[in-house]
Amino acid sequence: MRNAFFLPGVALPDNIAATGEMAAGRAANAVARGRRPSICAGALFRRARAPYARAQRRSFFAPRESSAASGKLLTEVLRECAPGAEPAILSGPVLSPRDVARHLPTAVTIAAKMDVALRLQATLGHATFRPYASDDLIGVALGGAAKNVYAIACGIVAGMGLGESARAALLARSFAELCRLGEKLGAKSETLMGLSGLGDLVLTATSPTSRNYSFGLALGKGSPRDELLRAGQPLAEGVETASALVARAGARHRASRRRGGRRYSFGQLALGRSLPRLMARPLKTE
Amino acid sequence: MRNAFFLPGVALPDNIAATGEMAAGRAANAVARGRRPSICAGALFRRARAPYARAQRRSFFAPRESSAASGKLLTEVLRECAPGAEPAILSGPVLSPRDVARHLPTAVTIAAKMDVALRLQATLGHATFRPYASDDLIGVALGGAAKNVYAIACGIVAGMGLGESARAALLARSFAELCRLGEKLGAKSETLMGLSGLGDLVLTATSPTSRNYSFGLALGKGSPRDELLRAGQPLAEGVETASALVARAGARHRASRRRGGRRYSFGQLALGRSLPRLMARPLKTE
Repeated sequence: MRNAFFLPGVALPDNIAATGEMAAGRAANAVARGRRPSICAGALFRRARAPYARAQRRSFFAPRESSAASGKLLTEVLRECAPGAEPAILSGPVLSPRDVARHLPTAVTIAAKMDVALRLQATLGHATFRPYASDDLIGVALGGAAKNVYAIACGIVAGMGLGESARAALLARSFAELCRLGEKLGAKSETLMGLSGLGDLVLTATSPTSRNYSFGLALGKGSPRDELLRAGQPLAEGVETASALVARAGARHRASRRRGGRRYSFGQLALGRSLPRLMARPLKTE
Repeated sequence: MRNAFFLPGVALPDNIAATGEMAAGRAANAVARGRRPSICAGALFRRARAPYARAQRRSFFAPRESSAASGKLLTEVLRECAPGAEPAILSGPVLSPRDVARHLPTAVTIAAKMDVALRLQATLGHATFRPYASDDLIGVALGGAAKNVYAIACGIVAGMGLGESARAALLARSFAELCRLGEKLGAKSETLMGLSGLGDLVLTATSPTSRNYSFGLALGKGSPRDELLRAGQPLAEGVETASALVARAGARHRASRRRGGRRYSFGQLALGRSLPRLMARPLKTE
Protein backbone atom coordinates (compact mmCIF):
# COMPACT_ATOMS: atom_id res chain seq x y z
CA MET A 1 0.00 0.00 0.00
CA ARG A 2 1.12 3.55 -0.67
CA ASN A 3 0.13 7.01 0.40
CA ALA A 4 0.97 8.81 -2.81
CA PHE A 5 -0.12 12.23 -1.57
CA PHE A 6 1.65 12.56 1.79
CA LEU A 7 4.40 9.97 1.45
CA PRO A 8 5.30 9.71 -2.24
CA GLY A 9 7.82 6.99 -2.99
CA VAL A 10 7.42 5.28 0.38
CA ALA A 11 6.25 1.66 0.50
CA LEU A 12 4.10 1.16 3.60
CA PRO A 13 4.52 -2.11 5.52
CA ASP A 14 2.13 -4.96 4.73
CA ASN A 15 0.45 -4.81 8.12
CA ILE A 16 -0.93 -1.32 7.44
CA ALA A 17 -4.34 -1.14 5.77
CA ALA A 18 -6.53 1.85 4.94
CA THR A 19 -10.27 1.93 5.56
CA GLY A 20 -13.05 4.50 5.60
CA GLU A 21 -15.17 2.35 7.88
CA MET A 22 -15.41 3.28 11.55
CA ALA A 23 -16.42 -0.32 12.23
CA ALA A 24 -12.87 -1.45 11.49
CA GLY A 25 -11.65 0.80 14.28
CA ARG A 26 -14.21 -0.65 16.70
CA ALA A 27 -12.61 -4.06 16.44
CA ALA A 28 -9.05 -2.83 16.94
CA ASN A 29 -7.05 -3.04 20.15
CA ALA A 30 -5.80 0.48 19.62
CA VAL A 31 -7.01 3.31 17.45
CA ALA A 32 -4.66 6.08 16.40
CA ARG A 33 -6.30 9.42 15.76
CA GLY A 34 -4.29 11.48 13.28
CA ARG A 35 -4.47 15.06 12.08
CA ARG A 36 -6.58 17.87 13.47
CA PRO A 37 -7.89 16.00 16.46
CA SER A 38 -9.38 19.11 17.98
CA ILE A 39 -11.83 19.40 15.09
CA CYS A 40 -14.65 16.95 15.77
CA ALA A 41 -12.64 15.02 18.33
CA GLY A 42 -15.60 14.54 20.63
CA ALA A 43 -17.83 13.18 17.86
CA LEU A 44 -15.20 10.71 16.78
CA PHE A 45 -14.49 9.51 20.27
CA ARG A 46 -18.16 8.89 20.93
CA ARG A 47 -18.36 6.60 17.93
CA ALA A 48 -15.50 4.29 18.79
CA ARG A 49 -14.78 2.17 21.85
CA ALA A 50 -11.15 1.08 22.11
CA PRO A 51 -7.88 2.22 23.61
CA TYR A 52 -6.66 5.25 21.71
CA ALA A 53 -3.18 6.19 20.62
CA ARG A 54 -2.82 9.61 19.16
CA ALA A 55 -0.40 9.39 16.28
CA GLN A 56 -0.39 13.12 15.75
CA ARG A 57 1.10 15.88 17.79
CA ARG A 58 -1.24 18.79 17.29
CA SER A 59 -3.78 20.60 19.43
CA PHE A 60 -4.15 18.46 22.46
CA PHE A 61 -6.54 21.02 23.82
CA ALA A 62 -10.19 20.68 23.00
CA PRO A 63 -11.54 23.35 20.66
CA ARG A 64 -14.06 25.98 21.67
CA GLU A 65 -16.85 24.02 19.99
CA SER A 66 -16.63 21.03 22.24
CA SER A 67 -15.45 22.39 25.55
CA ALA A 68 -16.18 26.10 25.29
CA ALA A 69 -12.62 27.28 25.72
CA SER A 70 -12.47 25.62 29.09
CA GLY A 71 -8.93 24.60 28.32
CA LYS A 72 -9.58 20.90 28.73
CA LEU A 73 -6.89 18.52 27.60
CA LEU A 74 -7.89 16.30 24.73
CA THR A 75 -7.43 13.24 26.90
CA GLU A 76 -10.01 14.71 29.28
CA VAL A 77 -12.48 15.21 26.44
CA LEU A 78 -11.85 11.61 25.45
CA ARG A 79 -12.55 10.42 28.99
CA GLU A 80 -15.88 12.28 28.98
CA CYS A 81 -17.00 11.18 25.53
CA ALA A 82 -15.77 7.58 25.65
CA PRO A 83 -15.47 6.60 29.29
CA GLY A 84 -14.55 3.01 28.40
CA ALA A 85 -11.59 4.00 26.24
CA GLU A 86 -8.03 4.18 27.53
CA PRO A 87 -6.50 7.50 26.51
CA ALA A 88 -2.96 7.63 25.13
CA ILE A 89 -0.88 10.31 23.47
CA LEU A 90 2.04 9.99 21.11
CA SER A 91 3.97 13.25 21.08
CA GLY A 92 7.45 14.55 20.51
CA PRO A 93 9.82 16.41 18.22
CA VAL A 94 8.59 15.37 14.78
CA LEU A 95 7.70 18.02 12.25
CA SER A 96 7.18 15.80 9.25
CA PRO A 97 5.92 12.22 8.99
CA ARG A 98 8.15 12.01 5.93
CA ASP A 99 11.23 11.98 8.17
CA VAL A 100 9.83 8.99 10.04
CA ALA A 101 8.93 7.24 6.79
CA ARG A 102 12.46 7.89 5.47
CA HIS A 103 13.82 6.17 8.60
CA LEU A 104 15.57 9.23 9.96
CA PRO A 105 16.11 8.62 13.69
CA THR A 106 13.13 9.86 15.70
CA ALA A 107 12.40 9.69 19.41
CA VAL A 108 8.95 10.40 20.86
CA THR A 109 6.97 9.91 24.04
CA ILE A 110 3.93 7.64 24.41
CA ALA A 111 1.88 8.52 27.45
CA ALA A 112 -0.87 6.31 28.86
CA LYS A 113 -1.42 4.07 31.85
CA MET A 114 2.03 2.47 32.08
CA ASP A 115 0.98 -1.02 30.94
CA VAL A 116 -0.81 0.46 27.92
CA ALA A 117 2.14 2.74 27.17
CA LEU A 118 4.59 -0.17 27.27
CA ARG A 119 2.36 -2.24 24.97
CA LEU A 120 2.10 0.62 22.47
CA GLN A 121 5.85 1.16 22.74
CA ALA A 122 6.53 -2.47 21.86
CA THR A 123 4.04 -2.37 18.97
CA LEU A 124 5.15 0.92 17.41
CA GLY A 125 8.88 1.07 18.11
CA HIS A 126 11.57 -0.09 15.73
CA ALA A 127 15.20 0.62 14.90
CA THR A 128 14.82 4.25 13.85
CA PHE A 129 11.55 5.16 15.59
CA ARG A 130 11.98 5.11 19.34
CA PRO A 131 8.96 5.73 21.57
CA TYR A 132 9.65 6.25 25.27
CA ALA A 133 6.87 5.19 27.60
CA SER A 134 5.40 7.58 30.17
CA ASP A 135 2.37 7.60 32.44
CA ASP A 136 2.17 11.40 32.51
CA LEU A 137 -0.76 12.21 30.20
CA ILE A 138 -1.09 15.72 31.57
CA GLY A 139 2.54 16.62 31.02
CA VAL A 140 2.65 15.24 27.48
CA ALA A 141 -0.64 16.89 26.49
CA LEU A 142 0.38 20.19 28.04
CA GLY A 143 3.79 20.28 26.36
CA GLY A 144 2.30 19.44 22.97
CA ALA A 145 -0.28 22.20 23.28
CA ALA A 146 1.81 24.98 24.82
CA LYS A 147 4.75 24.65 22.46
CA ASN A 148 2.60 26.01 19.61
CA VAL A 149 1.93 29.19 21.56
CA TYR A 150 5.61 29.71 22.37
CA ALA A 151 6.55 28.92 18.77
CA ILE A 152 4.34 31.79 17.57
CA ALA A 153 5.99 34.12 20.10
CA CYS A 154 9.49 33.04 18.98
CA GLY A 155 8.46 33.50 15.35
CA ILE A 156 7.26 37.02 16.10
CA VAL A 157 10.61 37.92 17.66
CA ALA A 158 12.47 36.53 14.65
CA GLY A 159 10.08 38.24 12.23
CA MET A 160 10.63 41.60 13.93
CA GLY A 161 14.38 41.16 13.33
CA LEU A 162 15.24 41.20 17.02
CA GLY A 163 18.04 38.69 16.61
CA GLU A 164 18.91 35.19 17.72
CA SER A 165 19.76 36.24 21.27
CA ALA A 166 16.28 37.59 21.91
CA ARG A 167 14.67 34.49 20.47
CA ALA A 168 16.83 32.19 22.61
CA ALA A 169 16.09 34.23 25.73
CA LEU A 170 12.35 34.08 24.98
CA LEU A 171 12.53 30.33 24.45
CA ALA A 172 14.23 29.85 27.82
CA ARG A 173 11.61 32.02 29.51
CA SER A 174 8.84 30.12 27.72
CA PHE A 175 10.16 26.81 29.01
CA ALA A 176 10.34 28.19 32.55
CA GLU A 177 6.72 29.35 32.24
CA LEU A 178 5.72 25.93 30.89
CA CYS A 179 7.30 24.30 33.93
CA ARG A 180 5.44 26.63 36.31
CA LEU A 181 2.18 25.91 34.51
CA GLY A 182 2.93 22.19 34.55
CA GLU A 183 3.53 22.27 38.29
CA LYS A 184 0.09 23.83 38.81
CA LEU A 185 -1.65 21.31 36.56
CA GLY A 186 0.06 18.23 37.99
CA ALA A 187 2.50 17.44 35.17
CA LYS A 188 5.82 15.78 36.00
CA SER A 189 8.85 17.96 35.51
CA GLU A 190 10.76 15.08 33.84
CA THR A 191 8.07 15.00 31.16
CA LEU A 192 8.37 18.70 30.44
CA MET A 193 12.16 18.37 30.27
CA GLY A 194 11.82 15.41 27.91
CA LEU A 195 11.11 14.76 24.26
CA SER A 196 7.46 15.86 24.23
CA GLY A 197 8.20 18.98 26.29
CA LEU A 198 11.52 20.69 25.71
CA GLY A 199 12.40 18.59 22.65
CA ASP A 200 9.23 19.49 20.81
CA LEU A 201 9.37 23.11 22.00
CA VAL A 202 12.90 23.61 20.66
CA LEU A 203 12.02 22.07 17.31
CA THR A 204 8.72 23.90 16.86
CA ALA A 205 10.04 27.26 18.05
CA THR A 206 13.15 27.31 15.85
CA SER A 207 12.20 25.56 12.63
CA PRO A 208 10.86 27.56 9.66
CA THR A 209 8.96 24.43 8.59
CA SER A 210 6.80 24.65 11.73
CA ARG A 211 3.42 26.21 10.92
CA ASN A 212 3.15 28.03 14.22
CA TYR A 213 6.65 29.48 14.01
CA SER A 214 5.98 30.56 10.41
CA PHE A 215 2.73 32.20 11.48
CA GLY A 216 4.61 34.19 14.14
CA LEU A 217 7.35 35.03 11.66
CA ALA A 218 4.81 36.52 9.24
CA LEU A 219 3.06 38.35 12.08
CA GLY A 220 6.39 39.82 13.19
CA LYS A 221 7.14 40.98 9.67
CA GLY A 222 3.88 42.91 9.64
CA SER A 223 1.30 40.64 8.00
CA PRO A 224 -2.17 41.26 9.45
CA ARG A 225 -3.34 38.57 11.85
CA ASP A 226 -6.74 38.10 10.16
CA GLU A 227 -5.18 37.61 6.76
CA LEU A 228 -2.90 34.92 8.14
CA LEU A 229 -5.83 33.14 9.78
CA ARG A 230 -7.95 33.17 6.61
CA ALA A 231 -9.33 29.88 5.35
CA GLY A 232 -6.85 28.04 3.17
CA GLN A 233 -3.84 29.19 5.20
CA PRO A 234 -1.91 26.56 7.15
CA LEU A 235 -3.45 26.13 10.57
CA ALA A 236 -1.53 27.77 13.42
CA GLU A 237 -3.14 25.97 16.34
CA GLY A 238 -1.25 28.01 18.88
CA VAL A 239 -3.67 30.91 18.33
CA GLU A 240 -6.60 28.88 19.68
CA THR A 241 -4.44 27.12 22.24
CA ALA A 242 -3.33 30.43 23.70
CA SER A 243 -6.87 31.19 24.88
CA ALA A 244 -7.32 27.67 26.20
CA LEU A 245 -4.05 27.88 28.13
CA VAL A 246 -4.96 31.22 29.64
CA ALA A 247 -8.35 29.84 30.68
CA ARG A 248 -6.70 26.78 32.20
CA ALA A 249 -4.04 28.78 34.01
CA GLY A 250 -6.71 31.19 35.21
CA ALA A 251 -8.86 28.46 36.64
CA ARG A 252 -5.94 27.31 38.77
CA HIS A 253 -3.79 30.27 39.43
CA ARG A 254 -4.75 33.90 39.03
CA ALA A 255 -1.21 35.22 39.13
CA SER A 256 0.04 33.11 36.27
CA ARG A 257 -3.10 34.00 34.33
CA ARG A 258 -2.28 37.67 34.56
CA ARG A 259 1.29 37.06 33.53
CA GLY A 260 0.39 34.61 30.79
CA GLY A 261 -2.57 36.57 29.53
CA ARG A 262 -0.47 39.34 28.18
CA ARG A 263 1.92 37.12 26.31
CA TYR A 264 -0.78 34.93 24.84
CA SER A 265 -3.00 37.65 23.45
CA PHE A 266 -1.50 37.84 20.00
CA GLY A 267 -2.77 40.78 18.04
CA GLN A 268 -4.44 42.58 20.90
CA LEU A 269 -1.42 44.73 21.69
CA ALA A 270 0.55 46.25 18.83
CA LEU A 271 3.89 44.47 18.64
CA GLY A 272 5.84 47.68 18.26
CA ARG A 273 4.39 48.93 21.54
CA SER A 274 4.70 45.75 23.57
CA LEU A 275 8.45 45.32 23.11
CA PRO A 276 9.61 48.55 24.78
CA ARG A 277 7.11 47.82 27.56
CA LEU A 278 8.64 44.38 28.16
CA MET A 279 12.18 45.73 28.02
CA ALA A 280 11.38 48.49 30.49
CA ARG A 281 10.39 46.13 33.30
CA PRO A 282 12.59 46.41 36.39
CA LEU A 283 15.77 44.30 36.35
CA LYS A 284 15.46 41.26 38.55
CA THR A 285 17.29 38.30 39.91
CA GLU A 286 17.04 35.08 37.95
CA MET B 1 36.36 55.73 20.76
CA ARG B 2 35.77 53.04 18.17
CA ASN B 3 36.61 49.38 17.73
CA ALA B 4 36.97 49.42 13.96
CA PHE B 5 37.86 45.71 13.70
CA PHE B 6 35.13 44.03 15.75
CA LEU B 7 32.45 46.72 15.83
CA PRO B 8 32.76 48.76 12.63
CA GLY B 9 30.41 51.74 12.51
CA VAL B 10 29.59 51.61 16.23
CA ALA B 11 30.41 54.61 18.41
CA LEU B 12 31.41 53.39 21.87
CA PRO B 13 30.17 55.38 24.86
CA ASP B 14 32.46 58.06 26.32
CA ASN B 15 33.00 56.17 29.57
CA ILE B 16 34.76 53.30 27.81
CA ALA B 17 38.54 53.61 27.42
CA ALA B 18 41.10 51.16 26.03
CA THR B 19 44.44 50.49 27.69
CA GLY B 20 47.24 47.95 27.39
CA GLU B 21 48.36 48.59 30.96
CA MET B 22 47.49 46.04 33.60
CA ALA B 23 47.95 48.77 36.19
CA ALA B 24 44.74 50.43 34.98
CA GLY B 25 42.89 47.25 35.85
CA ARG B 26 44.42 47.16 39.30
CA ALA B 27 42.77 50.44 40.22
CA ALA B 28 39.33 49.46 38.93
CA ASN B 29 36.38 48.34 41.02
CA ALA B 30 35.63 45.62 38.54
CA VAL B 31 37.68 44.02 35.78
CA ALA B 32 36.02 42.28 32.86
CA ARG B 33 38.01 39.51 31.25
CA GLY B 34 37.04 39.01 27.62
CA ARG B 35 37.90 36.39 25.02
CA ARG B 36 39.69 33.12 25.55
CA PRO B 37 39.83 33.26 29.31
CA SER B 38 40.99 29.66 29.54
CA ILE B 39 44.23 30.55 27.78
CA CYS B 40 46.51 32.11 30.40
CA ALA B 41 43.63 32.74 32.77
CA GLY B 42 45.67 31.81 35.82
CA ALA B 43 48.54 34.10 34.91
CA LEU B 44 46.21 37.02 34.34
CA PHE B 45 44.30 36.49 37.54
CA ARG B 46 47.51 36.38 39.55
CA ARG B 47 48.48 39.80 38.24
CA ALA B 48 45.31 41.65 39.12
CA ARG B 49 43.52 42.15 42.41
CA ALA B 50 39.94 43.37 42.03
CA PRO B 51 36.44 42.01 41.69
CA TYR B 52 36.08 40.35 38.33
CA ALA B 53 33.23 40.33 35.86
CA ARG B 54 33.58 38.10 32.86
CA ALA B 55 32.17 39.87 29.85
CA GLN B 56 32.56 36.87 27.62
CA ARG B 57 30.78 33.57 27.58
CA ARG B 58 33.40 31.06 26.53
CA SER B 59 35.35 28.27 28.23
CA PHE B 60 34.56 28.64 31.85
CA PHE B 61 36.60 25.55 32.49
CA ALA B 62 40.29 25.90 33.11
CA PRO B 63 42.50 24.50 30.35
CA ARG B 64 44.70 21.46 30.74
CA GLU B 65 47.75 23.68 31.18
CA SER B 66 46.61 25.27 34.39
CA SER B 67 44.56 22.61 36.08
CA ALA B 68 45.61 19.41 34.35
CA ALA B 69 42.21 18.52 33.00
CA SER B 70 40.85 18.43 36.52
CA GLY B 71 37.69 20.05 35.22
CA LYS B 72 37.90 23.01 37.56
CA LEU B 73 35.53 25.86 36.91
CA LEU B 74 37.21 29.09 35.92
CA THR B 75 35.85 30.78 39.02
CA GLU B 76 37.63 28.14 41.09
CA VAL B 77 40.91 28.82 39.30
CA LEU B 78 40.37 32.50 40.00
CA ARG B 79 39.81 31.82 43.68
CA GLU B 80 43.08 29.88 43.86
CA CYS B 81 45.16 32.38 41.89
CA ALA B 82 43.70 35.60 43.30
CA PRO B 83 42.15 34.79 46.64
CA GLY B 84 41.30 38.44 47.32
CA ALA B 85 39.26 38.86 44.14
CA GLU B 86 35.50 38.43 44.00
CA PRO B 87 34.62 36.13 41.09
CA ALA B 88 31.74 36.97 38.78
CA ILE B 89 30.51 35.58 35.49
CA LEU B 90 28.48 37.23 32.78
CA SER B 91 26.93 34.55 30.60
CA GLY B 92 23.92 33.95 28.40
CA PRO B 93 22.55 33.62 24.90
CA VAL B 94 24.73 36.07 22.96
CA LEU B 95 26.59 34.84 19.90
CA SER B 96 27.85 38.16 18.64
CA PRO B 97 28.83 41.32 20.52
CA ARG B 98 27.69 43.12 17.39
CA ASP B 99 24.06 42.36 18.29
CA VAL B 100 24.55 43.99 21.68
CA ALA B 101 26.28 46.98 20.10
CA ARG B 102 23.42 47.34 17.60
CA HIS B 103 21.00 47.48 20.55
CA LEU B 104 19.16 44.30 19.67
CA PRO B 105 17.42 43.13 22.86
CA THR B 106 19.70 40.84 24.88
CA ALA B 107 19.20 39.16 28.24
CA VAL B 108 22.07 37.57 30.18
CA THR B 109 22.89 36.33 33.66
CA ILE B 110 25.46 37.89 35.99
CA ALA B 111 26.50 35.50 38.73
CA ALA B 112 28.47 36.54 41.80
CA LYS B 113 27.86 37.04 45.51
CA MET B 114 24.40 38.63 45.34
CA ASP B 115 25.47 42.15 46.39
CA VAL B 116 28.24 42.13 43.79
CA ALA B 117 25.88 40.72 41.15
CA LEU B 118 23.30 43.44 41.84
CA ARG B 119 25.97 46.16 41.64
CA LEU B 120 27.24 44.82 38.31
CA GLN B 121 23.65 44.52 37.09
CA ALA B 122 23.01 48.20 37.86
CA THR B 123 26.29 49.25 36.23
CA LEU B 124 26.00 47.21 33.03
CA GLY B 125 22.25 47.08 32.37
CA HIS B 126 20.38 49.42 30.08
CA ALA B 127 17.24 49.51 27.93
CA THR B 128 18.25 46.76 25.46
CA PHE B 129 20.86 44.89 27.51
CA ARG B 130 19.25 43.19 30.49
CA PRO B 131 21.44 41.34 32.96
CA TYR B 132 19.66 39.19 35.55
CA ALA B 133 21.46 38.78 38.86
CA SER B 134 22.24 35.34 40.30
CA ASP B 135 24.39 33.99 43.10
CA ASP B 136 24.86 30.61 41.44
CA LEU B 137 28.42 30.75 40.08
CA ILE B 138 28.60 26.98 39.64
CA GLY B 139 25.40 26.76 37.61
CA VAL B 140 26.32 29.66 35.35
CA ALA B 141 29.88 28.41 34.78
CA LEU B 142 28.69 24.87 34.14
CA GLY B 143 26.00 25.87 31.66
CA GLY B 144 28.41 28.09 29.75
CA ALA B 145 30.97 25.31 29.50
CA ALA B 146 28.74 22.31 28.80
CA LYS B 147 26.68 23.97 26.08
CA ASN B 148 29.73 23.94 23.77
CA VAL B 149 29.99 20.18 24.09
CA TYR B 150 26.31 19.64 23.35
CA ALA B 151 26.49 22.12 20.46
CA ILE B 152 29.19 19.99 18.82
CA ALA B 153 27.03 16.89 19.27
CA CYS B 154 23.99 18.65 17.75
CA GLY B 155 26.15 19.88 14.87
CA ILE B 156 27.33 16.33 14.20
CA VAL B 157 23.74 15.08 14.00
CA ALA B 158 22.84 17.89 11.60
CA GLY B 159 25.99 17.33 9.55
CA MET B 160 25.20 13.63 9.19
CA GLY B 161 21.83 14.61 7.72
CA LEU B 162 19.84 12.90 10.46
CA GLY B 163 17.12 15.54 10.42
CA GLU B 164 15.65 18.15 12.72
CA SER B 165 13.82 15.61 14.87
CA ALA B 166 17.01 13.82 15.86
CA ARG B 167 18.74 17.11 16.66
CA ALA B 168 15.84 18.28 18.81
CA ALA B 169 15.72 14.95 20.65
CA LEU B 170 19.47 15.13 21.29
CA LEU B 171 19.15 18.69 22.57
CA ALA B 172 16.44 17.65 25.03
CA ARG B 173 18.56 14.73 26.23
CA SER B 174 21.60 17.02 26.53
CA PHE B 175 19.67 19.41 28.74
CA ALA B 176 18.50 16.54 30.94
CA GLU B 177 22.11 15.39 31.28
CA LEU B 178 23.21 18.94 32.11
CA CYS B 179 20.61 19.05 34.88
CA ARG B 180 21.82 15.73 36.32
CA LEU B 181 25.41 16.95 36.22
CA GLY B 182 24.38 20.25 37.78
CA GLU B 183 22.64 18.47 40.61
CA LYS B 184 25.85 16.56 41.41
CA LEU B 185 27.99 19.68 41.29
CA GLY B 186 25.67 21.84 43.38
CA ALA B 187 24.20 24.07 40.66
CA LYS B 188 20.67 25.42 41.09
CA SER B 189 18.13 23.98 38.68
CA GLU B 190 16.63 27.47 38.07
CA THR B 191 20.00 28.58 36.75
CA LEU B 192 20.24 25.71 34.30
CA MET B 193 16.68 26.39 33.14
CA GLY B 194 17.51 30.07 32.69
CA LEU B 195 19.30 32.32 30.23
CA SER B 196 22.83 31.07 30.84
CA GLY B 197 21.75 27.42 30.82
CA LEU B 198 18.92 26.47 28.48
CA GLY B 199 18.89 29.84 26.69
CA ASP B 200 22.55 29.64 25.75
CA LEU B 201 22.34 25.92 24.97
CA VAL B 202 19.46 26.41 22.51
CA LEU B 203 21.23 29.28 20.78
CA THR B 204 24.64 27.61 20.58
CA ALA B 205 23.29 24.22 19.54
CA THR B 206 21.05 25.47 16.74
CA SER B 207 22.83 28.44 15.21
CA PRO B 208 25.20 27.99 12.26
CA THR B 209 27.08 31.08 13.47
CA SER B 210 28.15 29.21 16.62
CA ARG B 211 31.72 27.94 16.26
CA ASN B 212 31.09 24.76 18.22
CA TYR B 213 27.96 23.90 16.24
CA SER B 214 29.82 24.59 12.98
CA PHE B 215 32.68 22.37 14.12
CA GLY B 216 30.23 19.53 14.77
CA LEU B 217 28.50 20.18 11.47
CA ALA B 218 31.79 19.81 9.58
CA LEU B 219 32.68 16.72 11.60
CA GLY B 220 29.29 15.18 10.77
CA LYS B 221 29.80 15.91 7.08
CA GLY B 222 33.04 13.93 7.17
CA SER B 223 35.81 16.48 7.72
CA PRO B 224 38.67 14.93 9.73
CA ARG B 225 38.82 16.07 13.34
CA ASP B 226 42.52 16.96 13.25
CA GLU B 227 42.11 19.13 10.19
CA LEU B 228 39.29 21.05 11.88
CA LEU B 229 41.40 21.59 14.99
CA ARG B 230 44.41 22.88 13.03
CA ALA B 231 45.85 26.25 13.99
CA GLY B 232 44.06 29.09 12.24
CA GLN B 233 40.66 27.38 12.44
CA PRO B 234 38.01 28.93 14.68
CA LEU B 235 38.35 27.59 18.21
CA ALA B 236 35.74 24.98 19.18
CA GLU B 237 36.20 25.06 22.93
CA GLY B 238 33.77 22.21 23.44
CA VAL B 239 36.46 19.73 22.38
CA GLU B 240 38.64 20.61 25.38
CA THR B 241 35.64 21.14 27.63
CA ALA B 242 34.38 17.63 26.90
CA SER B 243 37.42 16.10 28.63
CA ALA B 244 37.14 18.52 31.53
CA LEU B 245 33.44 17.69 31.98
CA VAL B 246 34.09 13.97 31.92
CA ALA B 247 36.83 14.40 34.50
CA ARG B 248 34.55 16.51 36.67
CA ALA B 249 31.63 14.13 36.36
CA GLY B 250 33.96 11.20 37.06
CA ALA B 251 35.31 12.72 40.23
CA ARG B 252 31.78 12.94 41.59
CA HIS B 253 29.78 10.20 40.03
CA ARG B 254 31.12 7.12 38.27
CA ALA B 255 27.86 6.20 36.58
CA SER B 256 27.42 9.50 34.84
CA ARG B 257 31.10 9.38 33.84
CA ARG B 258 30.52 6.13 31.99
CA ARG B 259 27.44 7.48 30.31
CA GLY B 260 28.96 10.86 29.56
CA GLY B 261 32.32 9.51 28.52
CA ARG B 262 30.99 7.91 25.42
CA ARG B 263 29.11 10.94 24.22
CA TYR B 264 31.98 13.31 24.88
CA SER B 265 34.73 11.40 23.13
CA PHE B 266 34.40 13.03 19.73
CA GLY B 267 36.45 11.28 17.13
CA GLN B 268 37.29 8.18 19.16
CA LEU B 269 34.39 6.17 17.83
CA ALA B 270 33.55 6.37 14.13
CA LEU B 271 30.30 8.31 13.79
CA GLY B 272 28.85 5.84 11.33
CA ARG B 273 29.30 3.06 13.88
CA SER B 274 28.12 4.88 16.97
CA LEU B 275 24.69 5.81 15.63
CA PRO B 276 23.32 2.28 15.13
CA ARG B 277 24.74 1.42 18.55
CA LEU B 278 22.85 4.28 20.18
CA MET B 279 19.65 3.45 18.32
CA ALA B 280 19.85 -0.21 19.32
CA ARG B 281 19.70 0.48 23.05
CA PRO B 282 16.67 -1.05 24.76
CA LEU B 283 13.51 1.07 24.74
CA LYS B 284 12.85 2.67 28.09
CA THR B 285 10.45 4.77 30.03
CA GLU B 286 11.04 8.50 30.02
